[in-house]
Amino acid sequence: MSEPSLIDRLIAPQSVAVIGASEDPTRIGGRPIAAMLKAGYKGRILPVNPKRDTVQGLPCYGTVEDLPEAPDAALIAVPAKLVAQTIEALGRRGCKAATLFSAGFAETGADGEAAQRDLVALAGKHGMRLLGPNTLGVYNVDIGYYGTFSSSLDTGFPLPGNIGIASQSGAFGAHLGALARDQGLGCSVLITTGNEADITVADAIRWMAGSDSVDVICTYMEAVNDAPALLKALDEARAAGKPVLALKSGRSAVGARAAASHTASLTGDAVVADAVLSDHGAIILRDPESMMDIAYAASKKVFPRRHTLGVVTVSGGAGIVASDEAERIGLPMPAMPEAAQARLLEVLPYASALNPLDCTAQALNEPALLEQFTRAGLEEGGYGAVLCFLTYVAGSEKLSKVILEAIEPLRATYPDRIIAFCALGDPQVLRRYDEAGILVFSDPCRAVRALDAVLRLGSAHASAPKNRTPAPIAVQLPATSPDETEAKALLAKAGIVAAPERAVQSAHEAVNAAVEIGFPVVMKILSPDILHKSDIGAVKLDIKDENGVRAAHAAILAAAQTHAPDARITGVLVARQLSGGVECLMGINRDATFGPVAVFGLGGIFVELLNDVALRACPFGPETAREMILSIRSAAILQGARGAAPADIDALANMLSRLSVFAAGAGDRLASIDLNPVLAMPEGQGAYALDAVIELDAKKEASDAH
Amino acid sequence: MSEPSLIDRLIAPQSVAVIGASEDPTRIGGRPIAAMLKAGYKGRILPVNPKRDTVQGLPCYGTVEDLPEAPDAALIAVPAKLVAQTIEALGRRGCKAATLFSAGFAETGADGEAAQRDLVALAGKHGMRLLGPNTLGVYNVDIGYYGTFSSSLDTGFPLPGNIGIASQSGAFGAHLGALARDQGLGCSVLITTGNEADITVADAIRWMAGSDSVDVICTYMEAVNDAPALLKALDEARAAGKPVLALKSGRSAVGARAAASHTASLTGDAVVADAVLSDHGAIILRDPESMMDIAYAASKKVFPRRHTLGVVTVSGGAGIVASDEAERIGLPMPAMPEAAQARLLEVLPYASALNPLDCTAQALNEPALLEQFTRAGLEEGGYGAVLCFLTYVAGSEKLSKVILEAIEPLRATYPDRIIAFCALGDPQVLRRYDEAGILVFSDPCRAVRALDAVLRLGSAHASAPKNRTPAPIAVQLPATSPDETEAKALLAKAGIVAAPERAVQSAHEAVNAAVEIGFPVVMKILSPDILHKSDIGAVKLDIKDENGVRAAHAAILAAAQTHAPDARITGVLVARQLSGGVECLMGINRDATFGPVAVFGLGGIFVELLNDVALRACPFGPETAREMILSIRSAAILQGARGAAPADIDALANMLSRLSVFAAGAGDRLASIDLNPVLAMPEGQGAYALDAVIELDAKKEASDAH
Repeated sequence: MSEPSLIDRLIAPQSVAVIGASEDPTRIGGRPIAAMLKAGYKGRILPVNPKRDTVQGLPCYGTVEDLPEAPDAALIAVPAKLVAQTIEALGRRGCKAATLFSAGFAETGADGEAAQRDLVALAGKHGMRLLGPNTLGVYNVDIGYYGTFSSSLDTGFPLPGNIGIASQSGAFGAHLGALARDQGLGCSVLITTGNEADITVADAIRWMAGSDSVDVICTYMEAVNDAPALLKALDEARAAGKPVLALKSGRSAVGARAAASHTASLTGDAVVADAVLSDHGAIILRDPESMMDIAYAASKKVFPRRHTLGVVTVSGGAGIVASDEAERIGLPMPAMPEAAQARLLEVLPYASALNPLDCTAQALNEPALLEQFTRAGLEEGGYGAVLCFLTYVAGSEKLSKVILEAIEPLRATYPDRIIAFCALGDPQVLRRYDEAGILVFSDPCRAVRALDAVLRLGSAHASAPKNRTPAPIAVQLPATSPDETEAKALLAKAGIVAAPERAVQSAHEAVNAAVEIGFPVVMKILSPDILHKSDIGAVKLDIKDENGVRAAHAAILAAAQTHAPDARITGVLVARQLSGGVECLMGINRDATFGPVAVFGLGGIFVELLNDVALRACPFGPETAREMILSIRSAAILQGARGAAPADIDALANMLSRLSVFAAGAGDRLASIDLNPVLAMPEGQGAYALDAVIELDAKKEASDAH
Repeated sequence: MSEPSLIDRLIAPQSVAVIGASEDPTRIGGRPIAAMLKAGYKGRILPVNPKRDTVQGLPCYGTVEDLPEAPDAALIAVPAKLVAQTIEALGRRGCKAATLFSAGFAETGADGEAAQRDLVALAGKHGMRLLGPNTLGVYNVDIGYYGTFSSSLDTGFPLPGNIGIASQSGAFGAHLGALARDQGLGCSVLITTGNEADITVADAIRWMAGSDSVDVICTYMEAVNDAPALLKALDEARAAGKPVLALKSGRSAVGARAAASHTASLTGDAVVADAVLSDHGAIILRDPESMMDIAYAASKKVFPRRHTLGVVTVSGGAGIVASDEAERIGLPMPAMPEAAQARLLEVLPYASALNPLDCTAQALNEPALLEQFTRAGLEEGGYGAVLCFLTYVAGSEKLSKVILEAIEPLRATYPDRIIAFCALGDPQVLRRYDEAGILVFSDPCRAVRALDAVLRLGSAHASAPKNRTPAPIAVQLPATSPDETEAKALLAKAGIVAAPERAVQSAHEAVNAAVEIGFPVVMKILSPDILHKSDIGAVKLDIKDENGVRAAHAAILAAAQTHAPDARITGVLVARQLSGGVECLMGINRDATFGPVAVFGLGGIFVELLNDVALRACPFGPETAREMILSIRSAAILQGARGAAPADIDALANMLSRLSVFAAGAGDRLASIDLNPVLAMPEGQGAYALDAVIELDAKKEASDAH
């Protein structure tokens, strides 16, 4: 996809031409020049404007042709109708990377979209990469490059640092940049991708994954325009050890999800995106504030291997508040070893040494106590992070020196652990802790949440290697959507087991089949045209004998005749009625962005009312399937809650994995699969897909037929 | 309980004696004097120290007896062993209110607790109220009174304002005060109650409810030491229109809740406290940051009557992020009326006018657009609050003037609505908006959450008057825990209906009973000593005929004989087997703090795995019971989800209300009631308690017997 060298020119150019350069530092064509002059851009600024000889004190060129060199990058700030000829001129001049500030393209409708496609083609002809159109641009603090007209610079420049921001929205990306600056966080690179005619947020993330100036990547997305590239970029960031914090907006639509029984309705776009992006290591966030908190914590590049927290506090109350939050979000706070507790209580009898470790206000008179408790948490507690609640005390000029002297040496002794303070007061005073490698938060709960995220990253790295992803196997789909028997036969080839069953064409055959399979049996109509069979009375349960089979056969055919007179009837299915298992459902739904996505949940109300499902992009192996199954809230039911026998989770996991491999190999004609119910029998007794519906995409069938 | 005039002296004294006054402004006896001198306390400071003639430049008195007047309040900063004689001396001198900084009392164990009780008795003898011991004290900014030794003052004084903080924990209360100050919020009063020997956080809240200097009350609690007083204080605050924001810590224990079937295990202390305090209007919070955000929003004293939000944004992305958060927390964002949308789109064709209203970056060039969109949201959208996402743009010196000129007049036109900005930049610039009555937040999601809380307060006020609370009716409990039949008979008197049933003493009687009641029946052992009857096989279901009754009778008695040979057997119960309803459970659990609390949930996994229950302190009326029932997550099952008949919710509500009235009238010998299952039949067909267990407190039985 992307060619790093060209994107590199766009983000870190040695020279930049500004087409539509303006003398006015508040206009789009003037802002970047003013910002670069002020910031001391290390490259060459080449203004282009036919009406001027100089722009903001720099020599100005009349046309692109007049440029003294082929610029690494160009900023295009001309009206939409002049953009094409500008790209053509730049291409001829040998420029390979352009940022299109100009709006008036895909965001305005079909005509604009066509014009935008033309721009990409034109640029492609010249081997040129495009950022935008309709982008706020890029900045790169380390070299003073401000290829942006963001007015966020009016309130100050970003601080140097190792956070990078990749955002589709210009205004929101710049908001994140300004937020970082206001919080004293260094953000070295902002890339806003606008309409993403060519370069996408995935390219931006990939660039950051390979860049020395970025250690933490923050990204804001509204739509995923190139899913494979995005997942590849996330994988590269993960391989480079750079956390990706993702804010993917637009989840409100999920709330409107219908409570239909079809599994497709369970996989809202936002939910799928969250699941897929987290599978590739992204941390999914909802709000800018927690993004900045985690970015801050991660920017120190300490990722302890243990997902545990110790809290040292001078206020019992604050210790409880922090513990409550840790429990709420699932950050373990194991107790201190008993010997360590005894030792600490000897030093300070009224302390609490369990965890939280309350060293009481006495620690303010004796900072050595603070050091002892913190050291004990790191050494004997072995916590991945120790959070010290010091509130305004740490912000006092006098005490801050003593506290820093007491705690700073612990950073060197435990370089692979995190020490964080919850502190209030003068930012100048608090900065000293930060400079000593101690994280500083104002709010204990925000601190706990940010530490949790960073500790999860570290412990994920420390845990066993990733589960193996099975290779998809090519699947031959029929010409049209199969009926239930055909669907089950197709799935059976993939190793997905239905209950013992037989398709029959007469009452006589039905009786023979039932006798062979063994009573009790269930019977149902076979028809590719009837999806909801039980709704029309074409399913009969608990048939105990031969007379019952005959009666059911007649009733089922009559029901079909009455309620679906035009349906093609291919027979009646007789199947063993299984009982004593747990009803589950599995399904596949083709997501427009991420392709086939598997869903698993328990049957009935768990899915319909509680929406308790797990999602995953296909394919995946049985270990991953097992993790999915155990991740639902109601998993305890499968594990034998309420005295029931534990279900055969291995069999379920194998079935779910096989289904995912089947879906991955079936190509994009596969619209959805519904296995509902899947009966999970007690341990060792297997799992059976009692019903199977495979829907193919009719439009794609038609096009195949041509 | 409290006598306002004495507490008033403690919080707003005209004169204060400092016993143990110190020249050193960093010692406990020196800090308050230094702070009051610096802040210009408007009353008289009277240091007491036998070793000095002056303290910090003030005349110092050798003993309490030497004081020139009876001080309104005294600060006691002497060692624990001298506290009693100090109180005695102060009492004799006519001082009626003392703050005890001294530690070494109840927090140190039984001896300290006894000493503390003695102090209260001693003070009582003199008609003196006590704050503490082990308290950080009080401050009252408006009069410059700093009866506290908090080192939070080292980093600056609190700002004047209308927020009050009442905290059991001194350090945490002072943390909240410092947090408010660091965020530029005015906090006029801090009261920390320490050991609460006499004055509790309830007294502090009540004082604030009646004080002109507090409009918003923030409270931090670890234990509720006087529940009736606290609820009364909350009611008074509500009546005064002052929101109470409560952070009640210590909920981690809830996580350890056992999944036992007994309803008692569903009512963790923290959950009960949350439920009861919110019933009395408190807003329950988990973290200091949201407390301050809501306090800030509420401090403007604008409580719109509509719980709806409009979002005006210059960034589409931010609009989506805010909408996602609003949907997540249940703050409605209704669409704009179509006519208004059309009008706005005419003004700005590329805008989005649905809600969020995206007036695009164009609004920065034409602030009139911002005004038009915001006005439309207030006027035609009718939103309770309009949040404008302006990010760093609003923080620019130049644009801030224009934006303020455009928006400020809307405050006057819509004084009963909230206008809030999400803005970044120089606090001095942003303060101008705040001074014009526009709320300013840095984070859009924090803004949405704070606005939601304030809008809920307003709409709660606007909604129908509170449901009537029924008066409890005196209940005569038996001497010992009743068996099932007795329990049902007791409950039947209270109007709580069981299924038709009969207690029998022989197989012959059982058959007659079954014939009379009608088949199918269920049968079970009657014994006060066997709680979990089905576990030992002493319950038989689905008995269809007379032979079945005889067999079941024999089997039940045999099972009881085998598994509970020592149990007292009072007979066998024969009951009509009801089917077709929804299984629920109701119960009562006596909370140590709040007395009898009712719990409602659906049977089985809903309660055990999902902990989906509603709680309420007893008694309450059927309307409230109905609200409880409909508040559980799985309420849709009662309302007829999945095509089932809707359950008789009226009957359930009546039963639950009657149960609450029964429990309220039963006195504190009632330990718990379990109605499990309660079968809710289809609408109009009633609800039946199929099992009933009443447990009485054996210890209280014993003491009654004396």
